[in-house]
Amino acid sequence: MIAELVTTGSELLLGQIVNTNAAYMARELNKVGVDVCFQTTVGDNRARMKEVLLHALSRADLVITSGGLGPTRGDITKEVSAEVMGRGMALNEECAARLRADFARTGREMTENNLRQAMIPEGAHIFVNHAGTAPGVAMERDGKLLVNLPGPPSEMKDMLHRSLLPYLAEKYGTIAATVSRVLHTFGIGESKLETTLDDLILAQKNPTLALLVRPTGVVVRITAKAENEEAALRLIAPLEKEIRGRLGNFVYGADKETMEEIVGGELKARGLSVATAESCTGGLVASRLTDVAGSSGYVRGGIVSYTDAVKAEALGVSREMLAREGAVSEPVARAMAEGARRVLGADIAVSTTGLAGPGGGTDKTPVGTVFLAVSGEAGTVAEKHLFTGNRAQVKFRASQAALAALGGYIRKCGK
Amino acid sequence: MIAELVTTGSELLLGQIVNTNAAYMARELNKVGVDVCFQTTVGDNRARMKEVLLHALSRADLVITSGGLGPTRGDITKEVSAEVMGRGMALNEECAARLRADFARTGREMTENNLRQAMIPEGAHIFVNHAGTAPGVAMERDGKLLVNLPGPPSEMKDMLHRSLLPYLAEKYGTIAATVSRVLHTFGIGESKLETTLDDLILAQKNPTLALLVRPTGVVVRITAKAENEEAALRLIAPLEKEIRGRLGNFVYGADKETMEEIVGGELKARGLSVATAESCTGGLVASRLTDVAGSSGYVRGGIVSYTDAVKAEALGVSREMLAREGAVSEPVARAMAEGARRVLGADIAVSTTGLAGPGGGTDKTPVGTVFLAVSGEAGTVAEKHLFTGNRAQVKFRASQAALAALGGYIRKCGK
Repeated sequence: MIAELVTTGSELLLGQIVNTNAAYMARELNKVGVDVCFQTTVGDNRARMKEVLLHALSRADLVITSGGLGPTRGDITKEVSAEVMGRGMALNEECAARLRADFARTGREMTENNLRQAMIPEGAHIFVNHAGTAPGVAMERDGKLLVNLPGPPSEMKDMLHRSLLPYLAEKYGTIAATVSRVLHTFGIGESKLETTLDDLILAQKNPTLALLVRPTGVVVRITAKAENEEAALRLIAPLEKEIRGRLGNFVYGADKETMEEIVGGELKARGLSVATAESCTGGLVASRLTDVAGSSGYVRGGIVSYTDAVKAEALGVSREMLAREGAVSEPVARAMAEGARRVLGADIAVSTTGLAGPGGGTDKTPVGTVFLAVSGEAGTVAEKHLFTGNRAQVKFRASQAALAALGGYIRKCGK
Repeated sequence: MIAELVTTGSELLLGQIVNTNAAYMARELNKVGVDVCFQTTVGDNRARMKEVLLHALSRADLVITSGGLGPTRGDITKEVSAEVMGRGMALNEECAARLRADFARTGREMTENNLRQAMIPEGAHIFVNHAGTAPGVAMERDGKLLVNLPGPPSEMKDMLHRSLLPYLAEKYGTIAATVSRVLHTFGIGESKLETTLDDLILAQKNPTLALLVRPTGVVVRITAKAENEEAALRLIAPLEKEIRGRLGNFVYGADKETMEEIVGGELKARGLSVATAESCTGGLVASRLTDVAGSSGYVRGGIVSYTDAVKAEALGVSREMLAREGAVSEPVARAMAEGARRVLGADIAVSTTGLAGPGGGTDKTPVGTVFLAVSGEAGTVAEKHLFTGNRAQVKFRASQAALAALGGYIRKCGK
């Protein structure tokens, strides 16, 4: 069963609000096996909305609208829907009574235009709105189903779960479940990933595989369809195992897990405390580590050393080394990590020093150059990176690399 | 001129990500008078994408896609676009050279599939990608224009502003302008703002006024329509002046200006250096200060003191005070700011200490309690706040309050 979501409203077309309804409906419908293949947004314009609904009904079996069920003249979705389904509209006394009772209960005055919400396409199935006033409707013709849901997210969500999903399950039986598992990688590019997983990508059918570029790194998405969620997860498991086997430590987490949570969990599990010494990331590594609830159990603290003076005085980096090597150098990154570990009394420390740009680049040290180091009982290791992107991107990528290096050090050398 | 936006990608159809690109493109295109009447989302499916593009070209004059320009097999937007415009594809040597140079510069290995990005529809106008690798293209046929932009938001935005908007302006001339001016406030609530601006909100016509709640605080949006941008700005100016007059220092910036840029500008203008001492914000204040290009000119550094030991040893807060007052207290906030100023040798320092949650709250000090202080030549001032929200929101709101307090101190006491 192919579905199209039609979201209506000028505020969406003008870009004044982001279309979170479409994403939410798509996610929930996919979970129960409804294949959302198209999403369309159109304004409160009668001719255009009619064209969009007719076209949607021509290419999808199930068309679900959201928006335009309110009491004002601009709310035309139900009317236009009735028209394309070849039905008249009539006042529904039950809906009208419910509206009147609702207004009386909340002590609001009910103006005449509110009764528009009780006008229902003939023969339509009615979804009561438990989170607002506008009822939803479902209409069938020639094996196609057209559903109108309200636009306010709280009303749409309530009606979707309370009425629409049970209605679809009763009508079509349980269809299937589409479940995705997302593996987060770091340190491997999109093309290299594709080459590594090429045969799996070519052989994909169910589950399917996709590579997506995210600010945190490339993610591998495994999507399976099956009769229910458990069966879909059973299809995903062996493929996930194979991919994790090939990618090894490039995979750092899955689904909603973040790098800072993963690293935090590893610190916590080993009873290790951590400190930071940051130059180019300017506190972002410490901020991300402390984004995790409970991080006060293992974060000692950090020093943002944006000047040579602070590197020397607060972290104990020798002035002679700073002069000889330059602040953006491997020896300074090492000395910063060692200094933070010592000064802040942590088991392990991570440092960053680099050029976030946009200014300050040279041929020898272009913008995006970042040295980072991790220091602990097993010694100090350092890495050199060259990141692309603007200042914010270089900062974020450097923080991601620093956290990844910290995690790698713990796994290799931690207790 | 009627436009349709076509965003592609299974992650949108599956609802795994919210379609922020469509909203952004719609907003920017409306600003220059392009009437976005339809937005459609389709997956990386050749037949469906072709149908969507053909239908879009039948009802719109300008069709702009976003997504599917990457190097992998799943990236088919450019190919399908060429097909519906009746063009072949050929390797573009300039694009290929640019790709090779980019990979060489960043020391990454260029695999063969990357060259797919240099395959260009015959006769297409090329938009160079300054924020990534995939070039965009524009193709014309029968008075219709089809444009392919990349999917990653940073690349799409850069190409939209740098290449597409100038290209459209040159091709069609300036059409009309809807211009918005956004005033950022901090420290004043939505209802208070509405009361203060009540008569202006009631009298609005052109420009219109809207109050919107953002993570940074409430913003006042003034929107004017006119024949061009300058005329719209002339309509906005007197209303902005009136609003600024009423709101005084509650307004800290406008449009894209951020609190960290404003405060940074004030530090720079007065030749003052700054340092941070952070507990509950965990480095976020320093990270935000260093998000600003050129901040190395005034940021000395910072200390993230997540434990009492670091507060005592690195910042010199007395252990007796920590035991007596507790780490989340005004005296400790003051001592932290004074310590950071002294230890890091800055003209002015800002501190935060509080409970970001979710755990650790007591009746006396509930989650969301934050003390902050600013210390400088004119002495030390402190504030107490109680923020609502989850851990990330409390952290961000505390960082915003700290930066606002820093800005206030500079304006009042700075040289």
